[in-house]
Amino acid sequence: MSEFSLIQRFFAEQAGLPGSREGTEQVSGLRVGIGDDCAVLDLAAGEELVTTTDTLVSGVHFPEDAEAELIGQRALRVNLSDVAAMGAQARWFLLSLTLPDEDENWLEGFSDGLFSAARQYGCSLIGGNTTRGPLSISITAFGTVPKGKALLRSGARAGDEIYVTGSLGDAAAALGVIGLPDTWGTIPGSQKEATASLIKRYWQPSPRLAEGLVLRDLASAAIDISDGLLADLGHIAKASDLGAELRLAALPQSSALRAAVSNDAERNVLALAGGDDYELCFTVHPDKVSVLDGEIAEGRLIASRVGRMVAGGGMRCYDKNGQEVSFDKSGYQHF
Amino acid sequence: MSEFSLIQRFFAEQAGLPGSREGTEQVSGLRVGIGDDCAVLDLAAGEELVTTTDTLVSGVHFPEDAEAELIGQRALRVNLSDVAAMGAQARWFLLSLTLPDEDENWLEGFSDGLFSAARQYGCSLIGGNTTRGPLSISITAFGTVPKGKALLRSGARAGDEIYVTGSLGDAAAALGVIGLPDTWGTIPGSQKEATASLIKRYWQPSPRLAEGLVLRDLASAAIDISDGLLADLGHIAKASDLGAELRLAALPQSSALRAAVSNDAERNVLALAGGDDYELCFTVHPDKVSVLDGEIAEGRLIASRVGRMVAGGGMRCYDKNGQEVSFDKSGYQHF
Repeated sequence: MSEFSLIQRFFAEQAGLPGSREGTEQVSGLRVGIGDDCAVLDLAAGEELVTTTDTLVSGVHFPEDAEAELIGQRALRVNLSDVAAMGAQARWFLLSLTLPDEDENWLEGFSDGLFSAARQYGCSLIGGNTTRGPLSISITAFGTVPKGKALLRSGARAGDEIYVTGSLGDAAAALGVIGLPDTWGTIPGSQKEATASLIKRYWQPSPRLAEGLVLRDLASAAIDISDGLLADLGHIAKASDLGAELRLAALPQSSALRAAVSNDAERNVLALAGGDDYELCFTVHPDKVSVLDGEIAEGRLIASRVGRMVAGGGMRCYDKNGQEVSFDKSGYQHF
Repeated sequence: MSEFSLIQRFFAEQAGLPGSREGTEQVSGLRVGIGDDCAVLDLAAGEELVTTTDTLVSGVHFPEDAEAELIGQRALRVNLSDVAAMGAQARWFLLSLTLPDEDENWLEGFSDGLFSAARQYGCSLIGGNTTRGPLSISITAFGTVPKGKALLRSGARAGDEIYVTGSLGDAAAALGVIGLPDTWGTIPGSQKEATASLIKRYWQPSPRLAEGLVLRDLASAAIDISDGLLADLGHIAKASDLGAELRLAALPQSSALRAAVSNDAERNVLALAGGDDYELCFTVHPDKVSVLDGEIAEGRLIASRVGRMVAGGGMRCYDKNGQEVSFDKSGYQHF
């Protein structure tokens, strides 16, 4: 199969999908889609474009024998998480797929997974390429946001409250079961019993796009949590020339995580530094906290207040007695 | 070195370059560059965005021991060739770099090559990521074009003249010397003597961006020649529901190619199907041919008229006596 027919069969011709050539005119803002040297995008007046790119490598970001469908939908989801962190609406994506061979079953599964996530989050494949080589997937995602409204890492001020969406640590708890290289080091064997719900959190992270839209006029800064809360909140702190204080007891943890990991300290390490959460961490000025809490109360987003931005640098964590607890960069806890 | 410090040192902090964080405000249309979840682009009124992505894999698209600087600048050049084919101005790019290890010498060379091409073609690195894995480089390039002015593959009409910029076959003739997997099959050992100028054509293809701007109001269709003229003109023909006739004697061939490959038929195969030319192939309505020929005479672009679009499908080639010469898809010549 040539690159051309492979692209046609598994990507361009996904019947009824906005990514198909026939569907180009149905995709808002898309003047030229798959099948030319470039895609051509026509933004509406007052819109800005946000764009991000990421690569997933077989054996590094997912096990070599992982199901193609899971790989396909996860690849798009993790990219869209960056779009969500800007408060932008997901619109389009480019795919660059490097394949060791033309395994049609694999391509079918991958394509199914990819387009299932594309439909769920309302974005369209607009171009890309396939090439020969060790399996890896590069996606460039695009979103739009009203001019000047993108949520940046640099907007936090001292006194802003820190929130996170959803719950933390689930995907990290599942990693041992999934068989990825252990990058967080300290998890004992008992956690190999992480439940199916934790594994799903790894394979099907939920980019918080709807939440990002709610936060556009409420948050002062935002980031998505891919490397763990400590590291990613650290990026907000650094970009805003501030420090941050976290209350460990406030870290949102799912009942599945509590069932799988009984030790509080171990769960906190997962929640602070496990990574692969793809939740949003954001800061809110005290004047807007009551509006935000109203949005939470009305169920427009699920989020927990976990700490506060402070003047000066550094990240500090406090236990329920107000005692400071020390972690190093990797999240390892020092008693 | 962390991903963060690696990006800072080799990519974000390239002093004085528009890709640096300090330089963000100097880059036209860039509201947020390296260092947030996404880059944010603000297009001018009346502009459309063109975007394309491509991956170069070590051992497939370049030899594993190739110089990092050559890899870096070639990776950007080949992506910009797609932007040129749309008649767009090159503006920005994202880089997704997969590396087996943190070889600082390699990164230094790669970064030098990449930014040297970025400066030459006036485009800025606005974001990206690095990850661990077998060496590969994914670039997503962005250009802008006045609304509705992008050159498409589908715009050719029967009777339009076919042109190509520059000369064809040089990079293909150099491939044997460079040591890439032989994808064009028929080149005898004598051509291992391809000169330094041919090798340079492979490593430093010239994206025809300035030519693309000249062609915006003159060409009816355009494509960049990466897979060889026969294949790429074939895409214009298919997208425009036409066929094409080529005059072999008109194919532009450099003096270096003539010196390295004395056999006419072998040279024609290289020019028709060698690939890696990164020239533009474009079509011009007869009404505009005299204007275009004027632009050529004034030196605003170098281009040769090589054939004509015709009703019906198929690609036909004629020798200097008007006899049809037959090639298969790979460019192999049948006598």
